[in-house]
Amino acid sequence: MGSTLTGDLNAVTWTGTAVRIVDQTKLPGKLTYLDLEEVDAVIDAVVRLAVRGAPALGAVGALGVAVALRQARRAGWDEQRLSAEVGRLREARPTAVNLAWGVDQVARRIAEGEAAVVARATALMADEEAANRAIGRHGADWILARTGRGRVRVLTHCNTGALAASSWGTALGIVRELHGRGALDVVYVNETRPLLQGARLTAFELQHLGIPYLIQADSAASSTIVGGKVDVAIIGADRIAANGDTANKIGSLGVALACRYADVPFVVAAPESTVDMATATGAAIKIELRADDEVLNWGGVRIAPAGSAAYNPAFDVTPAELVTALVTEAGVLAVSASQSPASVAQIKKVEAATG
Amino acid sequence: MGSTLTGDLNAVTWTGTAVRIVDQTKLPGKLTYLDLEEVDAVIDAVVRLAVRGAPALGAVGALGVAVALRQARRAGWDEQRLSAEVGRLREARPTAVNLAWGVDQVARRIAEGEAAVVARATALMADEEAANRAIGRHGADWILARTGRGRVRVLTHCNTGALAASSWGTALGIVRELHGRGALDVVYVNETRPLLQGARLTAFELQHLGIPYLIQADSAASSTIVGGKVDVAIIGADRIAANGDTANKIGSLGVALACRYADVPFVVAAPESTVDMATATGAAIKIELRADDEVLNWGGVRIAPAGSAAYNPAFDVTPAELVTALVTEAGVLAVSASQSPASVAQIKKVEAATG
Repeated sequence: MGSTLTGDLNAVTWTGTAVRIVDQTKLPGKLTYLDLEEVDAVIDAVVRLAVRGAPALGAVGALGVAVALRQARRAGWDEQRLSAEVGRLREARPTAVNLAWGVDQVARRIAEGEAAVVARATALMADEEAANRAIGRHGADWILARTGRGRVRVLTHCNTGALAASSWGTALGIVRELHGRGALDVVYVNETRPLLQGARLTAFELQHLGIPYLIQADSAASSTIVGGKVDVAIIGADRIAANGDTANKIGSLGVALACRYADVPFVVAAPESTVDMATATGAAIKIELRADDEVLNWGGVRIAPAGSAAYNPAFDVTPAELVTALVTEAGVLAVSASQSPASVAQIKKVEAATG
Repeated sequence: MGSTLTGDLNAVTWTGTAVRIVDQTKLPGKLTYLDLEEVDAVIDAVVRLAVRGAPALGAVGALGVAVALRQARRAGWDEQRLSAEVGRLREARPTAVNLAWGVDQVARRIAEGEAAVVARATALMADEEAANRAIGRHGADWILARTGRGRVRVLTHCNTGALAASSWGTALGIVRELHGRGALDVVYVNETRPLLQGARLTAFELQHLGIPYLIQADSAASSTIVGGKVDVAIIGADRIAANGDTANKIGSLGVALACRYADVPFVVAAPESTVDMATATGAAIKIELRADDEVLNWGGVRIAPAGSAAYNPAFDVTPAELVTALVTEAGVLAVSASQSPASVAQIKKVEAATG
């Protein structure tokens, strides 16, 4: 991992003896790093969301196995104990698929020892960074061509940068690429209630990168878009169905609806692995309902009457017809113009059969 | 003013010797009343938003003149001093038109003395309550007819109840009427960032009235509506242009866009006085930008990196074509079906000329 200013923000790195993470619970107040040298420390960081974001959790899972191997050697664990500890790590956040995926990707190397595990984990992270950078290039190319502008004004939601990924970022990776080309004017950052990943994390990353931004309440997004203040909205994705329906942080659908009304392109940026071809449409995506307290309390202060209940879905589903473009490392699909992942797979299948 | 459970929540009443207000800065934690017996106390309450909401400020302006008269008698103010104090009250919040309006409505009675001023002020408040209750009846009739349901699920934004009005409420007045008829299932309350009038005040009122509700992040509104969880959205209005374009609390436009996409009626409830026939369209409505800190801080805690800037518009404008119905004390206009205030005024003019 690099030591440049941008590299400093990598959510997850390997020090040679520990998993080093940015403690995201301390942001935006303080940029603190934690070196995790024991399985318990890794699990604790995951559980209390000191590290979060799907790709970052994949990296933690993979590197966490190396931590377990080192601890096994120090503490004299037998194979059974090591296996149990790796299993515990794998299940630290049961709904975070990437954590288990990261563990599984390196698990077959355990017999080969620490160096082989670390090599595989860092290769995974390098692959992810390369994919993110390709998303950045494809997205920037498409946006500049589509808008016909030399400099664009962007709206984004939630955090999709180096803190969520292990290094570069997806939607925010496109923003970084645009900025690197001198083609970025300003970013409107939705604060992203209830957990404020926009105000806390995205703003922190943009400031760190020297990219101009304005934080707004999520409810301001519609008028910002309809009022002509942005040229494009770019978001990430948690899961994309075969037809292009996209599950992402709650509030994404509202951004998409305003973009449709104002004829502003709505761009989804995600690695190809986010497309779940086994999920036909968004209707099959189960939406996680989270604790009421995330909405009803803030910083220990109760903001609603005692006895109130909340409705707190973590995600919403944006129908494919509202997704102007899906940007992956492989290129750009015009989803709302019927170029869904499924339709492209179908075309490839026909080409392969007849080609 | 009544002494029933609902009456208890009246934002503004006259005790005989003082303006009694609910201290809204203490909600939802505590229901505290303040008796304001001096002009300075009235101004202080207005400035620190202990009392807010356009109609409530109108009542405070009118009753505040009675406070000034009593203080003048006690302190031996001459006419010039009294006039200066009333002027100071009138300007306590320069952008709050209703405050000055309330003062002006009773100002001509000053020479007649305190009793005449109080009589005029309480008559204004009674008129407002009657108008609110008529809005409630018209709105409930229309919604039940339109949805064809015996019980409806409602989404609302911001606070439009007894705390914002001096007594009954506008959008929340319709909710109360529906509840009174046994035709209300549940209310989804948008928390209404940045100042959380939904989570703090609307939730408080609904709990007080025994009306079932769920608080949600504003960003959840689109999926609640598109997901079929509500039958109607009802909001208030700060200003309505002659063509029906409606300025209201930031976030209203997003609710309207989701309603349009899901074919759910979007209802605006406001007294006729909210229609500004001198404003042709929403483009002529100036949108107040408020302090960055409302977005960047919460309860004294900084939620964004130091040095961040915010974009914090207080209102947005929903185009008339998205307003299914405008409910006033005079009845219901189908605005999106071209029945704008201007078109109705035009028809009345033609009828008067030819009738």
